[in-house]
Amino acid sequence: MSKGRFIGVGLGPGDPDLVTIRAARLIAGAEVIAYPSLPGTESFARQIAAPYITDNTHEITLEIPMTTARGPAQTAYDLGAARIAEALDLGQDVVMLCEGDPFFYGSFMYLHARLSGRYPTEVVPGVTSVSAAAARAQMPLVARNEAFATIPAPLPDETIRHRIESADSIAILKVGRHLGRIRDLLASLDLLDRARYIERATLHNERILPLAEAPDPAPYFSLILVTKGADPWLKTQS
Amino acid sequence: MSKGRFIGVGLGPGDPDLVTIRAARLIAGAEVIAYPSLPGTESFARQIAAPYITDNTHEITLEIPMTTARGPAQTAYDLGAARIAEALDLGQDVVMLCEGDPFFYGSFMYLHARLSGRYPTEVVPGVTSVSAAAARAQMPLVARNEAFATIPAPLPDETIRHRIESADSIAILKVGRHLGRIRDLLASLDLLDRARYIERATLHNERILPLAEAPDPAPYFSLILVTKGADPWLKTQS
Repeated sequence: MSKGRFIGVGLGPGDPDLVTIRAARLIAGAEVIAYPSLPGTESFARQIAAPYITDNTHEITLEIPMTTARGPAQTAYDLGAARIAEALDLGQDVVMLCEGDPFFYGSFMYLHARLSGRYPTEVVPGVTSVSAAAARAQMPLVARNEAFATIPAPLPDETIRHRIESADSIAILKVGRHLGRIRDLLASLDLLDRARYIERATLHNERILPLAEAPDPAPYFSLILVTKGADPWLKTQS
Repeated sequence: MSKGRFIGVGLGPGDPDLVTIRAARLIAGAEVIAYPSLPGTESFARQIAAPYITDNTHEITLEIPMTTARGPAQTAYDLGAARIAEALDLGQDVVMLCEGDPFFYGSFMYLHARLSGRYPTEVVPGVTSVSAAAARAQMPLVARNEAFATIPAPLPDETIRHRIESADSIAILKVGRHLGRIRDLLASLDLLDRARYIERATLHNERILPLAEAPDPAPYFSLILVTKGADPWLKTQS
């Protein structure tokens, strides 16, 4: 019997309408879907994909603990990979649901590392939370020869400062309890009035605020966009 | 009479299946669509959107010269904005087709700068060519606290070198005639074997090559992805 295909599909930032045609079709036709979930909560990935999931689809829930310790998460990914491999060995295709884009800060990458060497694997890209936040806040990110950077907020101040200096526009991710520190850092770089806080972009409870008015700590699904001034040509009004 | 809405929709990297549900629906229902085109060529944005365009849609083609000189392009955007404004003033919604994501190196930004202050405006994010290239090359980009950067190839060597050093994974865009120079630069940073060349990701004539084997000069729709080594945890095979 031939092995099943392992397919990671990006679901975009949260609004089910921002799923791609290809992802929606793969989900609707899937024999088996798999998705990550924090223990005891509903999977965000499954919520986004819900309108496209059909009744006769088998579902594999991967409970992944939210922790910076590697041991427990690693064990969870090992276990999840083994459960997905069981279906693949039976010749069933498995569609793994991924928030945003599968290869951009996604837990899919840990399954990909464990399974792609052994099974035919495909990755379907998705809209990132960064693109979604920029669209919702109507902040053009980069034009012409500008450089863009994404920087996780938990990094040390000096690293973040250096990386902000190396880019024209910046997305700061994983803000959470680091919000106050990042705000102070951007103020010290005289960038506070160029920074916007975006929470749950494209969802019904989305919030977009000047960074100075953002809640501290911030929820997990939030980010900060900074554009240093952008291409002056872009600002030309006709 | 109330004004029409100006709506920029991201179409993704090229495969029409990577258009979002929302973009496809907006295009299918549009009274007027607008799209950029190089003079004398078929619009790439229109090609991607073609399966969703209906017969009774009015089309505005914006001829934008491919030039680094600002005058001629600026005039073309002024003219394009005026033509779109005419339809908006008649109360018609105008859906502007954008390759990739509208706010990520897109010509839509120049129309947005000219029109968003005067008309109700909405932006629908799309899958970037960077996400698409990573998916097709099966190169996970960033995990956990890694930083990502996009860098246009026309920048000076020293700027590019500095920005590569400030990130864990990098996309180098607008490669074209700069390919040889970028290849030498990455070799001098000992990153040549970590760099992949991706041309026309998701299209029928897509090519994915080790950077050492890439054509020089490269075509316009090509990019280079570099991952410095990524999270070692990611590499763990179960």
